[in-house]
Amino acid sequence: MIRTPLNSSVTRQKSFRNIRYYSSQTEVSRKYDKNDAIQFKSMFKQFASDLLEDVRKYDTTFAPSWFERSLQYNVNGGKLNRGQMTVIAYKILADDSQLTVENIELARKIGWVSELFEAALFMVDDIIDGSEIRRNMPCWHTLSDVKMQSINDMLMLENGTFVALRRYIGHKNYYPRIFQMFSEALFVTSLGQTLDTLITRENVINQTMERFQGIVQYKTCHSAFYLPVAFALEMCGYKHPGIYEDAKKVLVAIGLFFQARNDYLDCFGELTETGKEGTDIQENKVSWMAITALNKVNEKQKEIMQSCYGQKDPSKVAKVISLYKELGIDKDFLEYEKESYERINNMIQGSTFYNLKPLLQMIWDTIYHKKIW
Amino acid sequence: MIRTPLNSSVTRQKSFRNIRYYSSQTEVSRKYDKNDAIQFKSMFKQFASDLLEDVRKYDTTFAPSWFERSLQYNVNGGKLNRGQMTVIAYKILADDSQLTVENIELARKIGWVSELFEAALFMVDDIIDGSEIRRNMPCWHTLSDVKMQSINDMLMLENGTFVALRRYIGHKNYYPRIFQMFSEALFVTSLGQTLDTLITRENVINQTMERFQGIVQYKTCHSAFYLPVAFALEMCGYKHPGIYEDAKKVLVAIGLFFQARNDYLDCFGELTETGKEGTDIQENKVSWMAITALNKVNEKQKEIMQSCYGQKDPSKVAKVISLYKELGIDKDFLEYEKESYERINNMIQGSTFYNLKPLLQMIWDTIYHKKIW
Repeated sequence: MIRTPLNSSVTRQKSFRNIRYYSSQTEVSRKYDKNDAIQFKSMFKQFASDLLEDVRKYDTTFAPSWFERSLQYNVNGGKLNRGQMTVIAYKILADDSQLTVENIELARKIGWVSELFEAALFMVDDIIDGSEIRRNMPCWHTLSDVKMQSINDMLMLENGTFVALRRYIGHKNYYPRIFQMFSEALFVTSLGQTLDTLITRENVINQTMERFQGIVQYKTCHSAFYLPVAFALEMCGYKHPGIYEDAKKVLVAIGLFFQARNDYLDCFGELTETGKEGTDIQENKVSWMAITALNKVNEKQKEIMQSCYGQKDPSKVAKVISLYKELGIDKDFLEYEKESYERINNMIQGSTFYNLKPLLQMIWDTIYHKKIW
Repeated sequence: MIRTPLNSSVTRQKSFRNIRYYSSQTEVSRKYDKNDAIQFKSMFKQFASDLLEDVRKYDTTFAPSWFERSLQYNVNGGKLNRGQMTVIAYKILADDSQLTVENIELARKIGWVSELFEAALFMVDDIIDGSEIRRNMPCWHTLSDVKMQSINDMLMLENGTFVALRRYIGHKNYYPRIFQMFSEALFVTSLGQTLDTLITRENVINQTMERFQGIVQYKTCHSAFYLPVAFALEMCGYKHPGIYEDAKKVLVAIGLFFQARNDYLDCFGELTETGKEGTDIQENKVSWMAITALNKVNEKQKEIMQSCYGQKDPSKVAKVISLYKELGIDKDFLEYEKESYERINNMIQGSTFYNLKPLLQMIWDTIYHKKIW
């Protein structure tokens, strides 16, 4: 399974056309455009400098420069989707009086805190999986002067999240809730990682769609899809639990679709499109493809899955792929894609919280129309 | 450097004689005795079951049993000093009206949360150092079905801390402060670990007493010595920042002494007394012994430190030890021990917060008179 975050600038701009009608009377435009993206990116310098100031309160010898290097290497290189999504969500959800330059700035700061948090989660994943490459660079833990120290650096990023939150929103009434949300997200993500590891150790025939949903929901959807929206809802002062539940329900559904497509592309995507060779079969990964196949196999085909899935041998990998084709799983995905489009559109339209609809629709359109993630 | 927590039951009982006069009129005795220790230990079952209930809210497949195994293995086996110290501190600091069965129970729960937190910190240390043994058992990360998954299990314990806190004290007005304290402790401890790692990579001649103090303060004193007292102060409703500062100042001084003695014992302790062979010299560890020696060496002796410290070769280790003897560092430690006794007693007596004095004195007596940690 591939785990990467939300949207693309191209489709984002397109889908934003739908909500431009919102922006007429406010001081700050509700539109999120290239200029916002530039402003978001350029805030990293200030963000890093603020965090380093906090480190220097404790130590002025070795720690600041080491931490600065880790921040630059691990936090600054991503697609910045979660961080920007926090700003986008705030721009759409805030009422006119809340839509001030100062609040947009705060949303950007919380966005950067989310990027820090994401960097820590990716670091955990990469160390556990023994990954070599992240964001086109060698993973931090592979550097010869880092190695296992990366675990500690990950903790510095993870807990830097809470240090930065205190600095930026410690005086706001939504601070305790957002603090709690980050903390819960850590617990939930580790729980997803536990489920992922344990199921990957078992024979593929023990994979089920229910387990797929549990893992993806906890490991990916919660912090990559739900959190940015939840932060914006908190900042805007939404209290009704129903609006958070509606947002989570739809965003989990979107995240599951996102993961299912990743799993499809891992197997049937063109290298030019995905940018990497698929390895889900070799690594015995939980996969929408494998689970869908298992729901259709006869005894002989089940035997092929059982003996060939999770094996490095290229001939065995090829056997699984040709079994997928034989069973028509590639076509099943295209069916699922179509069905998802209808289903999720209906979910969004079915929400009783009209403020939420344009935001969820925009996220869904962005995810759905994107070809490469 | 060895990092282990606070006291021993023998000296604790002795030092508690001093505060028995406190206990006359309250429903709950201020004395901490064997019965308290039994009650504290027996609470683990309930604590684990509460945490598992929280895990089951998310998942009822693989996660609960895996997490339960990790809890039993990593959290239940310690000396329980931090946890018990929270209860002891509360018993001493609470005023009569606060000293209820219910509040003591709450202090025990926060004590167990601290044990969970400590287990996570130890796990990080053990993975980074590649340690093999913790609490007379193979380290969790060395088990063949755990390995790198231990990083994730560590995160589950670390963030279980916050889940448990919410369950137990989410309704209390001191919840945000205690939450913040745990979170800061994580940041501070990782910072100490960073300093420790970076200085250990350098030649021993770059070690200084100032760096020793920074590392030990952040990596050990803050969470092992200061936190249990700070939690009790929060629970009792102490607001004056001065009382926290006084407590921290004294407890950091006690922690530094504790570490200096560990470093002495690592080199000159009897195996029967310490239960392990010292390895500070071989592992190029920051050490009170090495730093004190470096303050006294001539050029030729400095050369010995430079070329022999941090080397596995037993003849080089022996050279460092005989240099320590030649310089009289073993005797210097005994002098330092005496001087510390006076100095820390004076610090305690000099505190303007009379409520704090019997507690700090008890902790200091316990640490000072204990021979093996």
